[in-house]
Amino acid sequence: MKKFAAEFLGTLWLVLGGCGSAVLAANFKSEPFIGIGLVGVSFAFGLTVLTIAYSLGRISGAHLNPAVTIGLWAGGRVESSTVLPYVISQILGGIAGAGILYAIAIGNGQDVGNFAANGYDEHSPGGYNMISALLIEFIMTMFFVIIIFGSTEKDRRREGFAGIAIGLALTLIHLISIPVTNTSVNPARSISQAVFVQGWALEQLWLFIVAPIVGGMAGGAVYKNLLRKTEFTEDDLRE
Amino acid sequence: MKKFAAEFLGTLWLVLGGCGSAVLAANFKSEPFIGIGLVGVSFAFGLTVLTIAYSLGRISGAHLNPAVTIGLWAGGRVESSTVLPYVISQILGGIAGAGILYAIAIGNGQDVGNFAANGYDEHSPGGYNMISALLIEFIMTMFFVIIIFGSTEKDRRREGFAGIAIGLALTLIHLISIPVTNTSVNPARSISQAVFVQGWALEQLWLFIVAPIVGGMAGGAVYKNLLRKTEFTEDDLRE
Amino acid sequence: MKKFAAEFLGTLWLVLGGCGSAVLAANFKSEPFIGIGLVGVSFAFGLTVLTIAYSLGRISGAHLNPAVTIGLWAGGRVESSTVLPYVISQILGGIAGAGILYAIAIGNGQDVGNFAANGYDEHSPGGYNMISALLIEFIMTMFFVIIIFGSTEKDRRREGFAGIAIGLALTLIHLISIPVTNTSVNPARSISQAVFVQGWALEQLWLFIVAPIVGGMAGGAVYKNLLRKTEFTEDDLRE
Amino acid sequence: MKKFAAEFLGTLWLVLGGCGSAVLAANFKSEPFIGIGLVGVSFAFGLTVLTIAYSLGRISGAHLNPAVTIGLWAGGRVESSTVLPYVISQILGGIAGAGILYAIAIGNGQDVGNFAANGYDEHSPGGYNMISALLIEFIMTMFFVIIIFGSTEKDRRREGFAGIAIGLALTLIHLISIPVTNTSVNPARSISQAVFVQGWALEQLWLFIVAPIVGGMAGGAVYKNLLRKTEFTEDDLRE
Repeated sequence: MKKFAAEFLGTLWLVLGGCGSAVLAANFKSEPFIGIGLVGVSFAFGLTVLTIAYSLGRISGAHLNPAVTIGLWAGGRVESSTVLPYVISQILGGIAGAGILYAIAIGNGQDVGNFAANGYDEHSPGGYNMISALLIEFIMTMFFVIIIFGSTEKDRRREGFAGIAIGLALTLIHLISIPVTNTSVNPARSISQAVFVQGWALEQLWLFIVAPIVGGMAGGAVYKNLLRKTEFTEDDLRE
Repeated sequence: MKKFAAEFLGTLWLVLGGCGSAVLAANFKSEPFIGIGLVGVSFAFGLTVLTIAYSLGRISGAHLNPAVTIGLWAGGRVESSTVLPYVISQILGGIAGAGILYAIAIGNGQDVGNFAANGYDEHSPGGYNMISALLIEFIMTMFFVIIIFGSTEKDRRREGFAGIAIGLALTLIHLISIPVTNTSVNPARSISQAVFVQGWALEQLWLFIVAPIVGGMAGGAVYKNLLRKTEFTEDDLRE
Repeated sequence: MKKFAAEFLGTLWLVLGGCGSAVLAANFKSEPFIGIGLVGVSFAFGLTVLTIAYSLGRISGAHLNPAVTIGLWAGGRVESSTVLPYVISQILGGIAGAGILYAIAIGNGQDVGNFAANGYDEHSPGGYNMISALLIEFIMTMFFVIIIFGSTEKDRRREGFAGIAIGLALTLIHLISIPVTNTSVNPARSISQAVFVQGWALEQLWLFIVAPIVGGMAGGAVYKNLLRKTEFTEDDLRE
Repeated sequence: MKKFAAEFLGTLWLVLGGCGSAVLAANFKSEPFIGIGLVGVSFAFGLTVLTIAYSLGRISGAHLNPAVTIGLWAGGRVESSTVLPYVISQILGGIAGAGILYAIAIGNGQDVGNFAANGYDEHSPGGYNMISALLIEFIMTMFFVIIIFGSTEKDRRREGFAGIAIGLALTLIHLISIPVTNTSVNPARSISQAVFVQGWALEQLWLFIVAPIVGGMAGGAVYKNLLRKTEFTEDDLRE
């Protein structure tokens, strides 16, 4: 039960913090303030994961993302019985985070517009088509899961740093891909926004469920078959 | 006595650094310079906590915030006799930091305006109402205290990283919420500014005392009852 | 084989992430969005290295850069037989990353222009001449390799932090030198872009192969002869 | 000798990287590029210290700053015989770094203007007077030295993090104080720029030697007398 509570609260925090920074602060231009822009949103998403990894990671592993849970399962790190309850906790947590954000965001009397929903074609911030969206969501999630696998391997010298590496990997992913799809790599994050935006966001939602999950599974498979080292000499550990 | 000196100096540094970056550098637009904006202020607040955590944390725990001290007390981590002297040290330190900042800020002959005071309604940077202000201050402080609890648990692999997680949690909180309330989550920080701004800042000060403290206590209660794991298997510690 | 796969994938990630952030997000100005600018690109490049260092570093050392491999070889840290296969893996990985980026970038129907190619004279972002370009690429790579050597020395207290120091060193290098050459310090990164841009980028490519490699070798020599400490007292390790 | 080489090269890197980012990239506005602004310069200065701390810190302690060396001496951490050779190495390293920067910066045919010199009154970026300049340089250096003392104390759980805390402390200091004095807190950095700018920069140089050194000594005294804990119980080390 603690595990599911941690995934629920952690994903709530990811959506409230990451999407919240985008909705409330990214384009904020009330003179003389300068909004946080894409750099600020990128750090916000990454720091939600970093902060939960160090605070609740020991409870649930801090996946906060169905594509991560399924990718870790595909790579043999997570048991089959864990997948469904984790994914449900994440989706519910994401929707709860979006609900709290909605309640806050309407408090200045302005329309929340497209919230922080993900999209392609005319709903891509930079007007990128479906192929670009599929490609970038697939490859970003694949590398995200490879980084998660690699940085959580048993390793005396690097133990403890995984939260920094994984959190800042999500920052990096946003620095690259916000103009293409507004960056998902996380179905729970996309679902949470589409539920409030409705219409086009629900129609395009399939891509932000399929591409991250397939990418996550590819990441798990690549790591397991191509990269995993099971034996290390002291010399390997030196570099 | 060393503990109170550490809380006094640490909170002085939080206000001088965090509010100082907002007052002196956030909106700085003297050509050709580009001010630090909301991203810079967010990092400044977080780095005050990160730097004090690693330098004075072993002395006092580096709370620097009455809502944190009270939240840790609510969660059973801090003794009752510690609360009042810590809170007084923090409030005095904050006011001292604001005084030094005031003395520096007037040195270019310009009005310091509203300093870095917190507000809602017409005093919210983005025009958010009291409900939004209460909601965001409550939930941000609640998660801040949950992150503090979780990241300071005994854990061989993560020990030492708490200062990064907690400092960057405060950065994250600012990336989200500056447009709503100018971000408090810390009554000592709000009091320190209101004392110099007077008028509306004192009238609205109650919210930035009540909401963070109630949020901090909620965070302590949630962590203690819902999340705290007292027994870990080696496998739990692996992920 | 795992080593070469790690260098291939790692350099693919460096080019896709670093150059990708430059091509897709740096100058993004679709209202109301604010692009990531030079600060965002600087963090993106650094975070590609940081994330690979913690995830795949234990496999291959995470060089991701021919100038680093050759610099480490010049300083006696890497065996001669390792150099060629590493460099080939890096160049192929970089080109693969650039290909994926190209496929994504054309998806909004706009010209990718000069991609993220490196240049001097009229192809320097700030109009700097060849001498400035040679100087900055040489000295930046020299210090990059010194930092890599120093931060990967055996040291109980600092072990594990190398990935942060080296990744953020690359961020720092970009914060300084993007206006001069668009920042290379990495022949694999420059080759990957020139292959797609052709023309002037291929003509100027020699500088971004020669200067980083000579700089990397100088860094290895300086560290080995001037800085390397082979014996430490407990007192040395204290500071 | 290795110690002096490390201080020379480290301070060269601090000036080349920190002042270099300010001179070359801070106000860079060649369309469509967005310069790094004050946020980028703040991170650049901090990252020079962070990268040298992890790479050369074990050799010389990575002071890179006469005010730090003198502050550590005032607090009893550095021997008297170390002070002069360290300070000379730092000043020479700073001037060498400024020379390399000058050679690069003139390569686009534009005037380097006031380089990254420190100043007050009409030479303060934000027009702050001498009192503000003295105050901020004093207090910033005082806290910088307190943070250095505290984060380098023997402490099993926090050992290794000092480079992050100290480097990011310098980032924080720049986020606050660039508009007031262009931020010195380091006489070697100020001297290195004044030597090239001449005139007013040399006339105002006294302040950026006196205030940081007095501030550093105050930091050493405050830490030694008010904050230093020589005995820790296991419980103290827990928080």
